[in-house]
Amino acid sequence: MWLKNCWYVIAWEHEIPAGGMLSRTVLNEPILVYRTTQGLVAMEDRCCHRLAPLSKGQLEGDSVRCGYHGLKFAPDGRCIEAPGVDVIPSRARVRTYPVASHNRWVFVWMGEPERADKALLPDNFSCDHPDWVYKPGYLHYDTPYLLIADNLLDFSHLSYVHADTLGGSTEIAQAKVEIERVPQGIRTTRRVPDVPPSPFWQTFQRFEGNVDRWFIYDFLLPGTLLMSSGGRPVGNAPDDLRGGVEMHSCQTLTPETETTTHYFFQQAHRRAIEDPAVTDAVYAGLLQAFEEDRDMITAQFETIRSNPDAPMLAMPMDVALIQFRRLLEAGVAAERAAAAGS
Amino acid sequence: MWLKNCWYVIAWEHEIPAGGMLSRTVLNEPILVYRTTQGLVAMEDRCCHRLAPLSKGQLEGDSVRCGYHGLKFAPDGRCIEAPGVDVIPSRARVRTYPVASHNRWVFVWMGEPERADKALLPDNFSCDHPDWVYKPGYLHYDTPYLLIADNLLDFSHLSYVHADTLGGSTEIAQAKVEIERVPQGIRTTRRVPDVPPSPFWQTFQRFEGNVDRWFIYDFLLPGTLLMSSGGRPVGNAPDDLRGGVEMHSCQTLTPETETTTHYFFQQAHRRAIEDPAVTDAVYAGLLQAFEEDRDMITAQFETIRSNPDAPMLAMPMDVALIQFRRLLEAGVAAERAAAAGS
Amino acid sequence: MWLKNCWYVIAWEHEIPAGGMLSRTVLNEPILVYRTTQGLVAMEDRCCHRLAPLSKGQLEGDSVRCGYHGLKFAPDGRCIEAPGVDVIPSRARVRTYPVASHNRWVFVWMGEPERADKALLPDNFSCDHPDWVYKPGYLHYDTPYLLIADNLLDFSHLSYVHADTLGGSTEIAQAKVEIERVPQGIRTTRRVPDVPPSPFWQTFQRFEGNVDRWFIYDFLLPGTLLMSSGGRPVGNAPDDLRGGVEMHSCQTLTPETETTTHYFFQQAHRRAIEDPAVTDAVYAGLLQAFEEDRDMITAQFETIRSNPDAPMLAMPMDVALIQFRRLLEAGVAAERAAAAGS
Repeated sequence: MWLKNCWYVIAWEHEIPAGGMLSRTVLNEPILVYRTTQGLVAMEDRCCHRLAPLSKGQLEGDSVRCGYHGLKFAPDGRCIEAPGVDVIPSRARVRTYPVASHNRWVFVWMGEPERADKALLPDNFSCDHPDWVYKPGYLHYDTPYLLIADNLLDFSHLSYVHADTLGGSTEIAQAKVEIERVPQGIRTTRRVPDVPPSPFWQTFQRFEGNVDRWFIYDFLLPGTLLMSSGGRPVGNAPDDLRGGVEMHSCQTLTPETETTTHYFFQQAHRRAIEDPAVTDAVYAGLLQAFEEDRDMITAQFETIRSNPDAPMLAMPMDVALIQFRRLLEAGVAAERAAAAGS
Repeated sequence: MWLKNCWYVIAWEHEIPAGGMLSRTVLNEPILVYRTTQGLVAMEDRCCHRLAPLSKGQLEGDSVRCGYHGLKFAPDGRCIEAPGVDVIPSRARVRTYPVASHNRWVFVWMGEPERADKALLPDNFSCDHPDWVYKPGYLHYDTPYLLIADNLLDFSHLSYVHADTLGGSTEIAQAKVEIERVPQGIRTTRRVPDVPPSPFWQTFQRFEGNVDRWFIYDFLLPGTLLMSSGGRPVGNAPDDLRGGVEMHSCQTLTPETETTTHYFFQQAHRRAIEDPAVTDAVYAGLLQAFEEDRDMITAQFETIRSNPDAPMLAMPMDVALIQFRRLLEAGVAAERAAAAGS
Repeated sequence: MWLKNCWYVIAWEHEIPAGGMLSRTVLNEPILVYRTTQGLVAMEDRCCHRLAPLSKGQLEGDSVRCGYHGLKFAPDGRCIEAPGVDVIPSRARVRTYPVASHNRWVFVWMGEPERADKALLPDNFSCDHPDWVYKPGYLHYDTPYLLIADNLLDFSHLSYVHADTLGGSTEIAQAKVEIERVPQGIRTTRRVPDVPPSPFWQTFQRFEGNVDRWFIYDFLLPGTLLMSSGGRPVGNAPDDLRGGVEMHSCQTLTPETETTTHYFFQQAHRRAIEDPAVTDAVYAGLLQAFEEDRDMITAQFETIRSNPDAPMLAMPMDVALIQFRRLLEAGVAAERAAAAGS
């Protein structure tokens, strides 16, 4: 169940080498991304002739030559040369995708190209902002993306999956959560007063006592989390972060296939902390926690896959994820209706 | 094709650690076994909420807490705590299974719990008897359990698969076999006079000449073999075992999935032989032979799987296995009829 | 899509050990090949009793005994012994296949045995000829055989896949190709004047300048390539090979399953070159190039498999492969019609 008319992250900008190509599958479609003098190109990674991956060929200027029989494709997808062929048939072309680079994330638009709208790009500002610093992350999941979205939409799991990393207290799970609709998604606000600081923070900072923690994030279609979180010493005024921690995180899920997922993420801290060891510690702690998630979600998926008819029982902590799934279903249904009507 | 209303071995008792959990799949259902102050508990290894395996959580006293969102389940399967939830819905429960520990085998009842009847437990006495000694064995098979049952129901294969281990003479295959119905199964009696002793016995005992061998076993639904076997010097009176060998073996098959199987087994000898090296030799010889079986049955299954329509040709040596399959089919048909009528 | 009434290569002759057996799957049928006093036997590698592979048993003279329950099969496939069975049922037999050894290739006939006709064996003369010398090759492919046939039927790929090995110039792809029908297949003639010699030749011979290259081959049902190729210094008379290279190559594809293939091949040179290092170099260069093919075709197949509905676009260089596919389709349709009418 995938939305098509939306932007999906295909890569961190630095993953696309100068003079080289990156191939990655999105929504089951193999896509080649490369740089030209005119900017980025995203092209079907499959020759229209015998279906060989173009990524096994090579770049020639702004064009790509297939490594099997030598067909050459311009950045707009047209075949402009075929060895021994005088007149190239006009049907000889590969699909290209609208592509956008935005705050170091490279997005592709998987639906109708004429509907691609950069106003729909998410506000992943902390990925490219002078005040914020981070190390970029990527994980590959052998599970459907919606199980990961479920995880991100219910932070009660921090108390259990991440007891020794991001969590640190059962109060996170017990806290009441505010949920609101925002354009393209759901906003979740969870405040957890007077609890020990996250074990993960303690790898780079000393704390004298308990903190008031907060997690405020938007989770937006098709699968992007934008979060402010942190903790300040109990008793501090809301805007007094001395002795506390403030983070901004951008995370996004891109379905690779029905059962596999790309996960791009970062957690940024304020540049005020100059020590690069802090940035490393924030990244290392986050990665460790995300591997805890992957381990749990992979086990969950194996259980689901071996008994696909076992029902889930909705519980009160599922409110946000249920609302998000409804949004997604409504979007997919609208796309199908539009496709049937066109 | 599985019987449900019967006991299946899920583990050797020693496999369930004090203070820990064992997870094993039986008839495609993931099951968690653990010890409480009241005895063993067998519980669906799948949280009713989001289907995470409970075995990735932890024991809290006699209860289990899910490691994903913290739901806590009592030994009867009821959810008794959920973080942030005031009133637990009564539907929040996981299935539990009747469980019985009997002569060091731990059994679960996979059908209707009210029909669980300990009188149906097999008489695996030599697994826990002062006169008998053994080392416990377990093998995992990547084949359906019925192919292994077929193997155990026709010992003509000892002459070929086990020529150098359990067998040792083609007379085993040529011997006439008596087959009788017994409650819940088939009894097979095979006597092989005046043959060399099993090569396997010769690893722990010297023989002066030929022996009269016997194999008498019950093979009981759903898949348990209980066997007396041995050999005595030719000419000895039937009850004179001097210079001979006497064994009792308990073996049982538990389907894990349609195509994989758990195999629990032991071969016990009389405690009269005090030397622990003998016990080790008996175990090592048996394991070597059972790996010969697994190798052959796995190859057989690969051949079957790659050409599922190839027919088998019934031969005279198949009488016992055909009778057993009929018993099983009748049992499964009766269960289906009862389920349809209820 | 397989022809049945034709010869497929199952092995190089040297792969069948004296006193041993070779098991290989052809058209999804497991086949055992062994030597008897009367010649080669090809037999279904699957006991008619419980479907165990006979190749796990052993040869006894000219017969094979199953290693599971000891049934013994004569070279004509009849079961001639079964332990403990007095009267062997006449239905106890395994299929045998017409087999022919021809110029060191061992062929099996997969269709109706009475139609097996040695006149249909291909003329792979250079596999066993006093004037020609080679090292035999075998590769296993995890792709359908037709994708490999496509590759062999369009040498334009030499300029791209094999730019640094068999190819060496884009003129190969640009050359005009003559295509003719021959009995059982297609003849392709490609002449490439005044180009650098193949990089592959330069590993064993020095050239002073450009050469005129030629590739003339028949590609015959079900999947055999017989080729004369080479190059002579520009300006030489057609029959003057001084300073040039002349090769004869025999290659054949045998479907193992719908998605896997056996590939037997050699490239022979004239015995005139006595140095065995040349034979090694010819083999090594060919193998390197064929691994380039396998890499490309495997990638192509992965792309096809992940999106099986993506269409191929026929291009002018596909003439030979399209003609060959039509021949094959006509042959398969004729076999089906004959089967339906019989």
